[in-house]
Amino acid sequence: MAKSPEEEHPKKALGWAARDSSGVLSPFKFSRRATGDKDVTFRVLYCGICHSDLHMIKNEWGSSTYPLVPGHEIVGVVTEVGSKVQNFKVGDKVGVGCMVGSCHSCDSCSNDLENQCSKMILTYGAKYHDGTTTYGGYSDLMVADEHFVVRIPENLPLDAGAPLLCAGITVYSPLRYYGLDKPGMQVGVVGLGGLGHVAVKFAKAMGVKVTVISTSPNKKKEALEHLGADSFLVSKEQDQMQAAQGTLDGIIDTVSANHPLLPLIGLLKTNGKLVMVGAPEKPLELPVFPLLMGRKMVGGSCIGGMKETQEMIDFAAKHNITADIEVIPMDYVNAAMERLVKVDVRYRFVIDIGNTLNSSN
Amino acid sequence: MAKSPEEEHPKKALGWAARDSSGVLSPFKFSRRATGDKDVTFRVLYCGICHSDLHMIKNEWGSSTYPLVPGHEIVGVVTEVGSKVQNFKVGDKVGVGCMVGSCHSCDSCSNDLENQCSKMILTYGAKYHDGTTTYGGYSDLMVADEHFVVRIPENLPLDAGAPLLCAGITVYSPLRYYGLDKPGMQVGVVGLGGLGHVAVKFAKAMGVKVTVISTSPNKKKEALEHLGADSFLVSKEQDQMQAAQGTLDGIIDTVSANHPLLPLIGLLKTNGKLVMVGAPEKPLELPVFPLLMGRKMVGGSCIGGMKETQEMIDFAAKHNITADIEVIPMDYVNAAMERLVKVDVRYRFVIDIGNTLNSSN
Repeated sequence: MAKSPEEEHPKKALGWAARDSSGVLSPFKFSRRATGDKDVTFRVLYCGICHSDLHMIKNEWGSSTYPLVPGHEIVGVVTEVGSKVQNFKVGDKVGVGCMVGSCHSCDSCSNDLENQCSKMILTYGAKYHDGTTTYGGYSDLMVADEHFVVRIPENLPLDAGAPLLCAGITVYSPLRYYGLDKPGMQVGVVGLGGLGHVAVKFAKAMGVKVTVISTSPNKKKEALEHLGADSFLVSKEQDQMQAAQGTLDGIIDTVSANHPLLPLIGLLKTNGKLVMVGAPEKPLELPVFPLLMGRKMVGGSCIGGMKETQEMIDFAAKHNITADIEVIPMDYVNAAMERLVKVDVRYRFVIDIGNTLNSSN
Repeated sequence: MAKSPEEEHPKKALGWAARDSSGVLSPFKFSRRATGDKDVTFRVLYCGICHSDLHMIKNEWGSSTYPLVPGHEIVGVVTEVGSKVQNFKVGDKVGVGCMVGSCHSCDSCSNDLENQCSKMILTYGAKYHDGTTTYGGYSDLMVADEHFVVRIPENLPLDAGAPLLCAGITVYSPLRYYGLDKPGMQVGVVGLGGLGHVAVKFAKAMGVKVTVISTSPNKKKEALEHLGADSFLVSKEQDQMQAAQGTLDGIIDTVSANHPLLPLIGLLKTNGKLVMVGAPEKPLELPVFPLLMGRKMVGGSCIGGMKETQEMIDFAAKHNITADIEVIPMDYVNAAMERLVKVDVRYRFVIDIGNTLNSSN
């Protein structure tokens, strides 16, 4: 018979878990495996709240199992390392993002694209190699294979750096892969939320000219003055959109809601690239003629591999890029989820696990 | 008052024109401009019938003006060159494809992408720099700026080579641009018609393994035995399609009819590219999640620039690539158009202009 989550492993752990699709989170005692030869064990200090956590606790993608401990923007300090661990030692600042395992032998893994491995293991709600369930970072302790652990540079704040482990790599990787990282290029960012605001910062640090495209005119000041974007388009204002036709080398589209692609494709220059990083549930309408006429493309991108995630974190530290965050205590998490539904956060909640998660919750 | 087509220029020309959206073609006397300094004048010997000719004579794209002389797969022999022409002399075998002019100063033109120039002038049914209408290759004489004239290598048959000027470059260019030209790659070709059969030949000559994807099981033998494709998938057979999931580096999709993209995206490997060269009139459904998960893209491509068109023709000559054609006399053209509607041709009609277009038609 399967052991209880509290007894299946030797290390006691405390987290907050959803127990059913109501999505309500509450304290949850479970356990973590002993530190294996290649494992890094760390005390969790902060964990970002990603919008996908919200989908998962409510089983909106249909793949959730309960109890579910969310969280895949996890940072902390190493407390123990396995005998074969090469890159980390006790006291190091580290992070874990969206995945904790992969096959290490397929083409994707061989090309540093563990995120594309068909056997990739998500940080929570998945089955690990040993058959036990993975639990995320809304918890006091993490144990992870060092291959999936990122070093956090000294000068990167742990709280505001945490969201980079998902939101950061999600926008950094396509800027690189689709070649939208050349100084002087014109790149659009659609949607100014958790992903979008970080996309603006990374693109600016790469030397790119950034146009924010939003449905909300009231985000203009924020985009230009605070985030340093070069221009701003209200997507519903046809005059503005028309005047900007054919001006962008590429667009990072972070919007998950259903939205028309034609106006965005129109903004692209010849050979322009529209890259989707949000995932609308229903298919979008793709007008083919405009793609042909300008040799344009619509591509997708989903987080990034571990090598690139470390590169992203190092780039962020070098250029002082962090997420704009609101730090919350653990017991505020359910209220935070309700605000997230209403997009009432600028721009990312981060849970102060180290100071506020304790057994008296 | 504007002069009549027969009198506006000094050189007498005879063609076949559609007079209205019935699309019926009949003999038409008009004129061509005198050979300008940079012009090449040539006697037309063969002209391919492209499916877009059918759309244009019937005004199915809403942009046609009449009388309309179609034809943009035009080959012949030079009879006169202007004083500043550098690359051609009398007697040379030459061709003209889909365009006869562009601005020569924009970014696209500067990058050998005249086909993407916003002032690109189509070979027929457009306004030339001098304000007169352009007439296509269903005619005995062509005059064109040498920049838009292609040299036909000695060993390339003029009749079976003609369709390469549109169908050939349409599939060659995306194979190159999207990097689907590396020996050993796995590339799919959707639709085995005028474009598709040439795509198979070019891809095979590049050393690519080709999978033909068709709705018609009865094209299997033709694809494998005659065209040399490596494998064949019936797109309606779910078992076959399922077994081939994740096997292709890229796909050239030549189908203009509305069709589902999801099964094609599923055939792609990680980082795979689905390239549309057919132009469905209505938007297609684009499922975004599969793009994200495999970092896949859907791109477009439309003919190619003049430098690449010459490269394509030289490549075709070197590798003995021609279109499979049915040569027809000029006065068969209306019957050919009716057969084209029914996709009753394997795979391209080519009009024997040199021997069958004369004033006694």
